[in-house]
Amino acid sequence: MSFDNPQYPLVIFTPSGKRGHFAAGTPILTAARQLGVDLDSVCGGRGICSKCQITPSYGEFPKHGVTVAENALTDWNSVEERYDRIRGLPKGRRLGCQACVQGDVVIDVPPESQVHRQVVRKAASDRAIVMDPATHLYYVEVTEPDMHEPTGDFERLGFALRDQWNVDRVTAPLPVMRRLQGALRKGNWTVTVALHKGHRDDSHRILDIWPGFHEGRIYGLAIDLGSTTIAAHLTDLRNGTVKASAGVMNPQIRFGEDLMSRVSYAMMNPGGDVEMTTAVREAINALSVELANEAGIEPRDIMEVVFVCNPVMHHLLLGIDPVELGQAPFALATSNSLSLDATELNLTSTNPAARVFVLPCIAGHVGADAAAVALSEQPGKSEDLVLIVDVGTNAEILLGNTTRVLACSSPTGPAFEGAQISSGQRAAPGAIERVEIDPVSKEPRFRVIGCDLWSDDPGFAAATATTGITGICGSGIIEAVAELRMAGLLDPRGLMGSAGQTGTARMIPEGRTHSYLLHDGSATGGPVITVTQGDIRAIQLAKSALYAGARLLMDEMGVDQVDRVTLAGAFGAHISPKHAMVLGMIPDAPLDKVTSAGNAAGTGARMALCSVAARTEIESTVRQIHKVETAIEPRFQEHFVNANAIPHATDPFPNLAAIVTLPDVSFNTGGGNDAGRRRRRT
Amino acid sequence: MSFDNPQYPLVIFTPSGKRGHFAAGTPILTAARQLGVDLDSVCGGRGICSKCQITPSYGEFPKHGVTVAENALTDWNSVEERYDRIRGLPKGRRLGCQACVQGDVVIDVPPESQVHRQVVRKAASDRAIVMDPATHLYYVEVTEPDMHEPTGDFERLGFALRDQWNVDRVTAPLPVMRRLQGALRKGNWTVTVALHKGHRDDSHRILDIWPGFHEGRIYGLAIDLGSTTIAAHLTDLRNGTVKASAGVMNPQIRFGEDLMSRVSYAMMNPGGDVEMTTAVREAINALSVELANEAGIEPRDIMEVVFVCNPVMHHLLLGIDPVELGQAPFALATSNSLSLDATELNLTSTNPAARVFVLPCIAGHVGADAAAVALSEQPGKSEDLVLIVDVGTNAEILLGNTTRVLACSSPTGPAFEGAQISSGQRAAPGAIERVEIDPVSKEPRFRVIGCDLWSDDPGFAAATATTGITGICGSGIIEAVAELRMAGLLDPRGLMGSAGQTGTARMIPEGRTHSYLLHDGSATGGPVITVTQGDIRAIQLAKSALYAGARLLMDEMGVDQVDRVTLAGAFGAHISPKHAMVLGMIPDAPLDKVTSAGNAAGTGARMALCSVAARTEIESTVRQIHKVETAIEPRFQEHFVNANAIPHATDPFPNLAAIVTLPDVSFNTGGGNDAGRRRRRT
Repeated sequence: MSFDNPQYPLVIFTPSGKRGHFAAGTPILTAARQLGVDLDSVCGGRGICSKCQITPSYGEFPKHGVTVAENALTDWNSVEERYDRIRGLPKGRRLGCQACVQGDVVIDVPPESQVHRQVVRKAASDRAIVMDPATHLYYVEVTEPDMHEPTGDFERLGFALRDQWNVDRVTAPLPVMRRLQGALRKGNWTVTVALHKGHRDDSHRILDIWPGFHEGRIYGLAIDLGSTTIAAHLTDLRNGTVKASAGVMNPQIRFGEDLMSRVSYAMMNPGGDVEMTTAVREAINALSVELANEAGIEPRDIMEVVFVCNPVMHHLLLGIDPVELGQAPFALATSNSLSLDATELNLTSTNPAARVFVLPCIAGHVGADAAAVALSEQPGKSEDLVLIVDVGTNAEILLGNTTRVLACSSPTGPAFEGAQISSGQRAAPGAIERVEIDPVSKEPRFRVIGCDLWSDDPGFAAATATTGITGICGSGIIEAVAELRMAGLLDPRGLMGSAGQTGTARMIPEGRTHSYLLHDGSATGGPVITVTQGDIRAIQLAKSALYAGARLLMDEMGVDQVDRVTLAGAFGAHISPKHAMVLGMIPDAPLDKVTSAGNAAGTGARMALCSVAARTEIESTVRQIHKVETAIEPRFQEHFVNANAIPHATDPFPNLAAIVTLPDVSFNTGGGNDAGRRRRRT
Repeated sequence: MSFDNPQYPLVIFTPSGKRGHFAAGTPILTAARQLGVDLDSVCGGRGICSKCQITPSYGEFPKHGVTVAENALTDWNSVEERYDRIRGLPKGRRLGCQACVQGDVVIDVPPESQVHRQVVRKAASDRAIVMDPATHLYYVEVTEPDMHEPTGDFERLGFALRDQWNVDRVTAPLPVMRRLQGALRKGNWTVTVALHKGHRDDSHRILDIWPGFHEGRIYGLAIDLGSTTIAAHLTDLRNGTVKASAGVMNPQIRFGEDLMSRVSYAMMNPGGDVEMTTAVREAINALSVELANEAGIEPRDIMEVVFVCNPVMHHLLLGIDPVELGQAPFALATSNSLSLDATELNLTSTNPAARVFVLPCIAGHVGADAAAVALSEQPGKSEDLVLIVDVGTNAEILLGNTTRVLACSSPTGPAFEGAQISSGQRAAPGAIERVEIDPVSKEPRFRVIGCDLWSDDPGFAAATATTGITGICGSGIIEAVAELRMAGLLDPRGLMGSAGQTGTARMIPEGRTHSYLLHDGSATGGPVITVTQGDIRAIQLAKSALYAGARLLMDEMGVDQVDRVTLAGAFGAHISPKHAMVLGMIPDAPLDKVTSAGNAAGTGARMALCSVAARTEIESTVRQIHKVETAIEPRFQEHFVNANAIPHATDPFPNLAAIVTLPDVSFNTGGGNDAGRRRRRT
């Protein structure tokens, strides 16, 4: 088709800059379609849906070489008047399907009228999700049946979809087929369908059908199914807006705190895997209902669900016994992405025909959650070498740049989530999340979740009276341990000194070791919160595992340092980079190059939910990621042992040394130990 | 690839005649594959399955220009010895995967070693079904997992299927995925899979999986779902053999005898359609169990189900309210063929992953059963003009040749099935199925189902003592009415004469009409079987509807006669062509051109079950069939009225007249009627 006949008026679209000449009387929507301008329409130009709103501009446009007269478009017509009267049309707007070309004109397509509009992520990142969801609503006019040319109602709907929307290979599940004839007749041979496009082929499936033009919106759930927490985002499939978010504890916790104990449970208890599968599916159903209620929508409007999860969660979600994941060679039953019906997972609180997409797994220990992080953070597109650490009960670690991406997982255990810590708790109001210890007075101050004041600020007691000071969460314990080290209360090997050795009465003897008194709430009936030697050991084990994994990838890459570090995960967002580096959780890097990506796995899930292209991308990305298996790698053990020190025993940390001087101290425990004794001998 | 190097030995395959030169040492299976010779193998040449058996020939073959020495193949090897010892190998047979080329050789591939072997139909037809089922068993060796190159077990199974069997795009439903890892390990990384190929694309789905080499066979059900009867054939998907057949009454009969009364039931009773759907699915499940038991197989081995049915049965099977089929324009919800999971139809007595194929419908009154008849009888490939009549509660009628095929349905009602007949019964032992009336003595003789003797043969009473003589079935009543006409006891308008008018005491007054006494079993406690005037009327209505439908198609085709007539349907197989023509059920045709196709719809179902190509064929065929709607066609009523006479009032019947002289009689009823009076006046 040619649009260069200068006898016709010139139509210029912004922001795309696409232009062409069109005969007077051509609707703007038609011109846009012919030029491939991204202008939305659900009703196909029938003046019903108002999705094709455009803003004509008048005046001189030297850049475009045109002057636009006030009558460049046909007059406001009865359809637009009616629409404006009933629904309201913003000032200056026209309906692209009603306004027709009269003369040269510049047409602006506002973002909300673009199908593939970009949705800027909330997180600190300049990347955006381009909306390209698998499921769209389409309004169609269907030919009435003719007994002399008999075809099924469904086949005529298929013809209409092909003719009016250029979609082909349409199928419908039987429950939709069952409602088809009623909908067509009630809608006087017009219907709106929710049409799902398969991302691996050009097949389409009708997920739902409504008589006439359906005003509603359709939604998707992006679910980050973690060992400890199930987090879900109810997302508008039209514009990517998160309408509601919620998280619940993974009820599988009652079968085992961490992944391996759940695998053991499945091994030891016949049918144990089925119990866990049922538990997690029920929790997802409840979460789905909760989110729909919160957003004020019907579960029927939830058309898609995307899951990211580690391999054990992946198998238990799918109903596959995870036993093979508990032993070398850690074989996944299936690693590719999966497209399923919601009913296959017994999901009951979505549209009955809803579709499920499960991101691919990278390996037996590196799951779809790591794939989602890779999708969100795109290490393979980074010019500089980036280390991405998703901290959870199991840490997923990615290292790479445009040349190569490596991945591994590391069994950090639940210490970073506040478990196995004497005063530990989950991140919730009342939990200590930030800690500072004065290097001279050795006195602490802290902040608790739910209050912006520090504990030594005036009014702190009143501000925290409601929540109380209940415990210490993951980010709090990390800061506490790092601050103890910086204040000279903790030596590089992780031993705390006595009151005598450190000169502060906050060091309380506890058996053969010492604890640091962070907060004594006993006067007001609250808890006494200390950091014990056991807490230090738990954090040392966790951070050593994390660091050893990162170091193993650096070995494989042949490097001793990384250009930048991204902390991912809900927890990662709250970690102080400096404290993480003092602790030796992560390799040395310039402090301003250690950033948080927020819940990157959740972001990856949302991207896959909102974009078919993202699904295709991650499928090819995971095939390019090289997996390093920590569980059987002797060097992992070596790195793990070396990483026990705070920060760590072998690697240099020039960036950290430039900003922090760590006291050269060494303590023994109450009963004495080799290190302490050796130091006393020197 | 070139096989013409004369330095290598020549291998000639029979019966295909394919030939080529192969290096010494080439296994015969390899040579066959390279030449495209149809030689079966499930295990891929590993000496496990024995499907590649061949028979080498020795001696001189002047036709082929070779002499084959005794040592043309490598010696019988240990694999063959072991196989013969354990399973037995027929004399002269070799395993094609073990025997290797040594010199020029002629290799015969016996029919049972051909994949695409032809299965000659039992019915009187020279056509055959070429085996090409959607589901095959494949034995594969799968690479073990390697934690350094992680891939899912399922993905490695996919690679193996691609490499070893050239199949791609393999998926598996979750229940199969769940058993995958166990099967692979139990089979020491070999498994047998039942793989289903989609007939519209090249996708494959694993329906079942077994560890190692699976010895079993897989089966399919071809189901002819009629208004009155559900007939099913359990078929071996390897060779098309019917292992068991059974039929049950359609339990929907309790909701209405014929189609329209069932549509009415759905209209008048909310949820009535669901009741009928549940009833028919339960009956199918029970039938499936019965067939599996009879054949001594597990329901799990039933991998496919094919349905043919009329449109109302079609919708009720699928769970779609048939209400639209009860009123013009008789719109089908869907007309195309359907590929479904058995679970979507709640089929519980097949493999849980079994696939269902439903043949396409032609129109709102001409269903998948008519499509199956078209597949079986192929009117569109006939050089002469063929009329195909599938007689049932609803008759499907096809008329066509290579230029054009027309179709209609006609509401004959259940009279032809023995319903609405005073002594009527279903075709079962004890039912009168053949009748002759002596034109001089007016005495009848008859045969009953289950006995080869005529009623006037010596020993008949003893031979029928067990079954008794219980009633008259559809073919019996047709013959009885035609014989009454030929014996001069019935006039062309369908009136029977009195004893006085006809000279036989077998004409018994019954109110104002007469009945003909066919059999009086009262002396031995059996029934008195008569043909009443009401029976004649019921048959007249049914045959008029049938004839009017055929005549309407002939009008549309612009012809007054047809070249041949095919009677289809279980009932059609038992109708005497001469009697049908005397009755005027079918148009006049040479008697030897009136043949039975047996249960053509059932045959069509079996063809679709055994052949993916047949599915594709019928999909394109139905699009070419032109549908004529009888329900709103005024000429149908006209033809119907004209067809009331016996044979019929308007059309000539030269072929019939050449063999049968119908007495020129006319009777009135007991109370007198115009016709009788008019005749007396002449």
